[in-house]
Amino acid sequence: MRISGDKLHEECGVFGIASSPGSSLDPTYETFTGLFSLQHRGQESCGIAVNDAGVISCHKNLGLVMEVFNAPMLQKLKGNSAIGHVRYSTTGNASVENAQPVAVTHSKGNLAIAHNGNLVNAGELRREIENQGGIFHSSNDSEIIAYVIVRERLAAGAIELAVERAMHQIRGAYSMLVMSPRKLIAARDPNGFRPLSIGMLDNHYIFASETCAIDAVGGVFLREVMPGEIAVVEDDVLRSIDTGLRAEKSFCAFEFIYFARPDSVLEGISVDHARQEMGRSLARESGVEADIVIAVPDSGISAAIGYAKESGIPYGVGLIKNRYIGRTFIQPSQGQRERAVRLKLNPLGANVKDKRVIMIDDSIVRGTTSARIVSALREAGAKEVHMRISSPPFLHPCYFGTDVPDSSALIAHNHTVEETSELIGADSLEYLSNSALLRVLRDAGCSVCDACFSGKYPVKPPVETEKNIFEQRIVRMV
Amino acid sequence: MRISGDKLHEECGVFGIASSPGSSLDPTYETFTGLFSLQHRGQESCGIAVNDAGVISCHKNLGLVMEVFNAPMLQKLKGNSAIGHVRYSTTGNASVENAQPVAVTHSKGNLAIAHNGNLVNAGELRREIENQGGIFHSSNDSEIIAYVIVRERLAAGAIELAVERAMHQIRGAYSMLVMSPRKLIAARDPNGFRPLSIGMLDNHYIFASETCAIDAVGGVFLREVMPGEIAVVEDDVLRSIDTGLRAEKSFCAFEFIYFARPDSVLEGISVDHARQEMGRSLARESGVEADIVIAVPDSGISAAIGYAKESGIPYGVGLIKNRYIGRTFIQPSQGQRERAVRLKLNPLGANVKDKRVIMIDDSIVRGTTSARIVSALREAGAKEVHMRISSPPFLHPCYFGTDVPDSSALIAHNHTVEETSELIGADSLEYLSNSALLRVLRDAGCSVCDACFSGKYPVKPPVETEKNIFEQRIVRMV
Amino acid sequence: MRISGDKLHEECGVFGIASSPGSSLDPTYETFTGLFSLQHRGQESCGIAVNDAGVISCHKNLGLVMEVFNAPMLQKLKGNSAIGHVRYSTTGNASVENAQPVAVTHSKGNLAIAHNGNLVNAGELRREIENQGGIFHSSNDSEIIAYVIVRERLAAGAIELAVERAMHQIRGAYSMLVMSPRKLIAARDPNGFRPLSIGMLDNHYIFASETCAIDAVGGVFLREVMPGEIAVVEDDVLRSIDTGLRAEKSFCAFEFIYFARPDSVLEGISVDHARQEMGRSLARESGVEADIVIAVPDSGISAAIGYAKESGIPYGVGLIKNRYIGRTFIQPSQGQRERAVRLKLNPLGANVKDKRVIMIDDSIVRGTTSARIVSALREAGAKEVHMRISSPPFLHPCYFGTDVPDSSALIAHNHTVEETSELIGADSLEYLSNSALLRVLRDAGCSVCDACFSGKYPVKPPVETEKNIFEQRIVRMV
Amino acid sequence: MRISGDKLHEECGVFGIASSPGSSLDPTYETFTGLFSLQHRGQESCGIAVNDAGVISCHKNLGLVMEVFNAPMLQKLKGNSAIGHVRYSTTGNASVENAQPVAVTHSKGNLAIAHNGNLVNAGELRREIENQGGIFHSSNDSEIIAYVIVRERLAAGAIELAVERAMHQIRGAYSMLVMSPRKLIAARDPNGFRPLSIGMLDNHYIFASETCAIDAVGGVFLREVMPGEIAVVEDDVLRSIDTGLRAEKSFCAFEFIYFARPDSVLEGISVDHARQEMGRSLARESGVEADIVIAVPDSGISAAIGYAKESGIPYGVGLIKNRYIGRTFIQPSQGQRERAVRLKLNPLGANVKDKRVIMIDDSIVRGTTSARIVSALREAGAKEVHMRISSPPFLHPCYFGTDVPDSSALIAHNHTVEETSELIGADSLEYLSNSALLRVLRDAGCSVCDACFSGKYPVKPPVETEKNIFEQRIVRMV
Repeated sequence: MRISGDKLHEECGVFGIASSPGSSLDPTYETFTGLFSLQHRGQESCGIAVNDAGVISCHKNLGLVMEVFNAPMLQKLKGNSAIGHVRYSTTGNASVENAQPVAVTHSKGNLAIAHNGNLVNAGELRREIENQGGIFHSSNDSEIIAYVIVRERLAAGAIELAVERAMHQIRGAYSMLVMSPRKLIAARDPNGFRPLSIGMLDNHYIFASETCAIDAVGGVFLREVMPGEIAVVEDDVLRSIDTGLRAEKSFCAFEFIYFARPDSVLEGISVDHARQEMGRSLARESGVEADIVIAVPDSGISAAIGYAKESGIPYGVGLIKNRYIGRTFIQPSQGQRERAVRLKLNPLGANVKDKRVIMIDDSIVRGTTSARIVSALREAGAKEVHMRISSPPFLHPCYFGTDVPDSSALIAHNHTVEETSELIGADSLEYLSNSALLRVLRDAGCSVCDACFSGKYPVKPPVETEKNIFEQRIVRMV
Repeated sequence: MRISGDKLHEECGVFGIASSPGSSLDPTYETFTGLFSLQHRGQESCGIAVNDAGVISCHKNLGLVMEVFNAPMLQKLKGNSAIGHVRYSTTGNASVENAQPVAVTHSKGNLAIAHNGNLVNAGELRREIENQGGIFHSSNDSEIIAYVIVRERLAAGAIELAVERAMHQIRGAYSMLVMSPRKLIAARDPNGFRPLSIGMLDNHYIFASETCAIDAVGGVFLREVMPGEIAVVEDDVLRSIDTGLRAEKSFCAFEFIYFARPDSVLEGISVDHARQEMGRSLARESGVEADIVIAVPDSGISAAIGYAKESGIPYGVGLIKNRYIGRTFIQPSQGQRERAVRLKLNPLGANVKDKRVIMIDDSIVRGTTSARIVSALREAGAKEVHMRISSPPFLHPCYFGTDVPDSSALIAHNHTVEETSELIGADSLEYLSNSALLRVLRDAGCSVCDACFSGKYPVKPPVETEKNIFEQRIVRMV
Repeated sequence: MRISGDKLHEECGVFGIASSPGSSLDPTYETFTGLFSLQHRGQESCGIAVNDAGVISCHKNLGLVMEVFNAPMLQKLKGNSAIGHVRYSTTGNASVENAQPVAVTHSKGNLAIAHNGNLVNAGELRREIENQGGIFHSSNDSEIIAYVIVRERLAAGAIELAVERAMHQIRGAYSMLVMSPRKLIAARDPNGFRPLSIGMLDNHYIFASETCAIDAVGGVFLREVMPGEIAVVEDDVLRSIDTGLRAEKSFCAFEFIYFARPDSVLEGISVDHARQEMGRSLARESGVEADIVIAVPDSGISAAIGYAKESGIPYGVGLIKNRYIGRTFIQPSQGQRERAVRLKLNPLGANVKDKRVIMIDDSIVRGTTSARIVSALREAGAKEVHMRISSPPFLHPCYFGTDVPDSSALIAHNHTVEETSELIGADSLEYLSNSALLRVLRDAGCSVCDACFSGKYPVKPPVETEKNIFEQRIVRMV
Repeated sequence: MRISGDKLHEECGVFGIASSPGSSLDPTYETFTGLFSLQHRGQESCGIAVNDAGVISCHKNLGLVMEVFNAPMLQKLKGNSAIGHVRYSTTGNASVENAQPVAVTHSKGNLAIAHNGNLVNAGELRREIENQGGIFHSSNDSEIIAYVIVRERLAAGAIELAVERAMHQIRGAYSMLVMSPRKLIAARDPNGFRPLSIGMLDNHYIFASETCAIDAVGGVFLREVMPGEIAVVEDDVLRSIDTGLRAEKSFCAFEFIYFARPDSVLEGISVDHARQEMGRSLARESGVEADIVIAVPDSGISAAIGYAKESGIPYGVGLIKNRYIGRTFIQPSQGQRERAVRLKLNPLGANVKDKRVIMIDDSIVRGTTSARIVSALREAGAKEVHMRISSPPFLHPCYFGTDVPDSSALIAHNHTVEETSELIGADSLEYLSNSALLRVLRDAGCSVCDACFSGKYPVKPPVETEKNIFEQRIVRMV
């Protein structure tokens, strides 16, 4: 679970749809709908770019989809095709200039681009572009990708060829959408780190980070964009380009553990099912006698139900989450801070009083929130609190789109499980083992990237010193 | 469950706290916190009034607590005591002039008032006041109550005596807070229709509609304000005045069924526990063979868990609710409307596909949303959908604060259970019987008002013709 | 001239128009237009109330007319008749609850009221109403007037009779509009302190504080509402009721000096003409050798042109006013404050350099702004700066709607003209004599109230102690 | 005069100031102040970029300076140096992405740029950059200039050398400011089309489009940036680089006629003085018997005073301008449109009734507003209306920053003076002759560009076909 001050990820969601002339489809409204159903992947900023007979218009801003877009704005943004993006980052300073899509003009026209993921050679590419006189308005990878595509577009006969050539230069994790005056293009990195699905609404193609967005617009799921594939939609026809770049599939395990919505199906696996299985494995690995299994809502619920089923200990609601928290939360004064977690999450006393409680969460980052929850459960009368985490300890940085705090802030990096348990105030603490996690996902047919747990990176991480160079060239839009 | 266009209630929540000079307590921030945790009781408008050494300042507006209040506004609203209100109504035209608290000056000073409930003799009282030259700025019962109290205050030696005399004149459901320059007063109608709890934070008294608000500020629950009681806080001392007005306790059954938060304890009963028991009763009364028990989130969850436990059929997540819906939802065009429910609630395909599903909801109003959910479940592959409602059919209007649509809109009023089942497209439909509901609550020690199910009103309803008279005297703040 | 921090007045403007069924007139838009042209009379808050077949809707808020109203809001506020109000006060704490019109319901229906002026027996009336159980939501005289009218309406057969009876009870300055479901009523106090004109647009009647508002909507000026007159418009017919309350005409001299727009005609006199004549008189009384006559824009321009004509010294632009100042001006830090006046008013160096300058302003309140302007002119190279004020020294409080700072803040109250001149840093300073002012206006046919200059009050001022009583009963909307 | 729907210009204003470490100067506040005093040069959008020890932060948006910036925003934007921009364009679709300053990162750091003017080879440069793989986020010349500078910066040892090399490539009108981590640079095109002054505040240098901005911050005017000069400020020291690019001075005559504020001194000439002289020349060239000389406020005032002095006919106020018009004006319905001009400009009846009126305006564009004013004056009783324009007829497009409507919309392009007079409904109409205009400015020592009157362009205009190419590559931020 994530509570402000305990954030872990930089995740994004993308959605795109192309209609054809004469169609009754409203691509802008569908994209708005799709983004809304991907909101869990990013709450910091969002945007939609539409292509109206070659003119690309874009609206993006800080805020939730329902805040940034209203009816008049959707009305203004009419077009034949559209792509959209939701974004979240931990950098703290939410900034408009990093919102996506990025829409630019170039020598042969214009394009808009939106992506989910993280390049490992962003620094290299940026320096190369800068050395040719390039200028950057943001610190966004999408702007780098746009440059690389545009540079290739000068010689390439078609935008999709430029995208293909660009894919030979960019390295890392990316599930991206490119909209040109006539085409809508989806591309996925050779390892397939981040999800990207293809759906269909009537006879129009959809691309979406998760299948729940295809469901939301009433579409039908077709298949995933394959690692290294470029999918080009033009006049309602889908063509696939095999870039030959396919590497070993390394789908992000954290998508199953935390990022994705339980009703999505990724890599052929129901997210809820995967989480239930993790919960079952956890029960087998780290069983403990107790009276009730509760979840830290919402991300712990599926695993908790699995744990309860496997262990035979009844599942119950132990914590109530306040659903009315907006983006900007008024910071309590020092004295009030301790109680802040109670505002967002309150124990359901009747269910935990005098009970031995097993509390399931998907992960622990800093541990401060966990400690507050355990303490709140005890105040509510819980006799014992056994914390069970449905993923292995988070130990290594992620370079593929999951933004983690410095190791120094990771409780698992600095403390043994026993120490952590004590710091959190739990009666016991256990994590799912990495082997169990991999088994659950492998059994379901998915080969994943577990680098954050194992330290084995499927793609070489960037050189750390790069970063500092660019930090001296900061331009922020306030 | 309620989804826009299928709304049932006019509920409100109140919160108040009084500090003493020299205290480090910030009553405004605590009230803000309390209201935030009562947000589920009303999302239309909210407000806080503070008393700063006799000067009463009030801020109220349409919107959620987190929208109406920000840090500078809370800073502006400093005082020694505070009362707050959240409001929801079905009248459609949300209007600022009906927001509470109502703050007024009178012959002996000033006061602010906030209440939850509905008077049955509002029309009579209003006519009487008007006939004495009174003017009204709103159509709010609170303004009427303020007049009655102020009229009595002319002769009464103290504000609490004026409140007591007023209580002999107002009839119906009210759980109210009155803040005067020196006192904070809570009062509850003789039947105790609506909840009102007393808590304590350090040595300061709190009043709140639900105990979850006392939890939220880190306070301790003491007891409920008794029917017919006036509780007066002055200089951190609580005095109780027994008005002698106690009637038979008629606590609103719908508070247990739907309104209250599951982590609240009302009338000594855990709301979650009561709902689980309703689910268990429902399983006993209307069992059916099935593979999974799912809930319509969030209000059906507790009952579904109870149903699953009693029936032995596993509980699972069958529907995912989008948590990012703001207050103003962009209306889809006609063609898109059918899909709108999918935006807010999506079936979790893996859990319902090829399954016989029991779906638990707390009530059915118009039936349109239920029909759409059943249809979505079938599209997701459910083999059978059995709908079970954890309350009896809603048949009679409520005059005590639960605003219901006209009978003509109530599906249960116009159709048999069999017809309703068919209209909704379910394989079967069963409601909890009224006797089972009463038994659950009686066993837990609570005597309730079940007028909306039984038609037996504990207090004589208002004469219907009254209403029309006042409808000709409309003043709206736009 | 007025510059923030040097404010003098509480002025208001009112506008009303009534159409008849089937008319193509849009009373809301016309009232919006009228208020916009009366904006100089009040920039703090504004509002419009409309009557749509008996339902009164009102929108009001802090802000300029162009800020508070936009196209969708005007669309929402449709009706057959409308009244509007612009307000300004010096109380500092701009507050929504004191915005007008005041719209209320009462025993026989509803009404909206808006007025310009100030009652001298407001305290008495308020106490009387409170002693009968009345409650107040604001500290606004309009709410008191509404009560008095409503109280009389109980017995009176028609709203206009209630207004007449109310006029026998309220004392002071008021030019007011009352809108009932069927009628639009204008009334003016017996002394006619504040302006109120009648105009016509097609066959519909208009009431407006100044004729410039009648011009703005394209209407024709008919006449002024007479002191003590009630003008009733019903079905496009105007009836006049003579209350017999006419006292000696005491039109506010400050309307001519400062408040009104130069293109308005008040009491048959062109405001610009009156100001030019004041300037001519000033030149005759206090001539001085100089090279250029300049004005403090905008209110000093007409008098400066008159002075120039009479003296033969050429008129020129000496100060440029920044036109883009909004309502909320960012306060400069201490070190920047001295330069703040330069932001709003900059000397036109080429016209004052090495010149002997006569600078005309309409009045001096605290003197701080005057001092800064004189200093800025000297920095810009002016050899001599002779300040001439086109009104007598402001010495006495006004109880009729011109809100003045405490005497302690009035420079003229605490210093001789010579001292003031020195404090301001001018080479000489002269005011128009009161006798000259009265002569100018008398010659033009107008009998005025000059109490702020002479101390002779046409109506007995309120007892000062009253005020304190009510200050203990403060309710503020924040 | 300009009234919405009758707009002529694309003007901008720039302001910059550099402090040194340890200085008490607040560059952000000073820039805010400076922009506020340049607001007349552009009301569409504005922005400020600050440099805080090498980190550049920028805030820009649609709106007035007082709307876009508030105290918290100014607080956030702290830095050692700052540049700001106000912008206005006639393109109709105000768009955020074209707001300035433009802030970017590049191979050697970052920079922000703001300019006033228009390049004639923008198309060429853009194509060249695009052909090297450049991408554009806006259709702004500043982005092109940024690219050219950055490209040169790759080889140049210092930013000012890159600016110099860039100036050899960009052609047209530009008065620009460039802020780098350590330097603040001002540069002006070889013809000196647009103004750019140097001032000093304490020991810190200021650059501003007009001297009134230097006055506003309390600074001292030093001199103008010379045509073809680059002025570099570093550590409070100013260095001048002579690029050798100086061409014949061609200062925009329209700056004197309309754009600049009367209290500014441009090219050593008081703007007010120049306008008075134009008015005097006009009186000599086109005298007519009349009773009063009035101005169309505000831009006609200085010329009208000059005309009055020369002719001996008294000057008076004939039109009152409403000062409370915001940026967004609610469009009246068709029937109300005719009266719209009356909202903004109302005749002062007493001064024009039965009079022969000479009305001075600075220019006529479409003529519709002029026609409405003449008609309003006649309705107000004017016996004769003689229109006199203090500039020659506007006949040719401007390529140097004055955006003019298509010739088809220019009344002077399509009609003789006699026809125009008739269309406007005036009794007579005369323009200032171009020779008289040039004489006034030449006598004052300024060599101007009069291309819009004469068609003689000091720099070769762009090839028209260019434009269309880029119009196919449109990206808009909505």
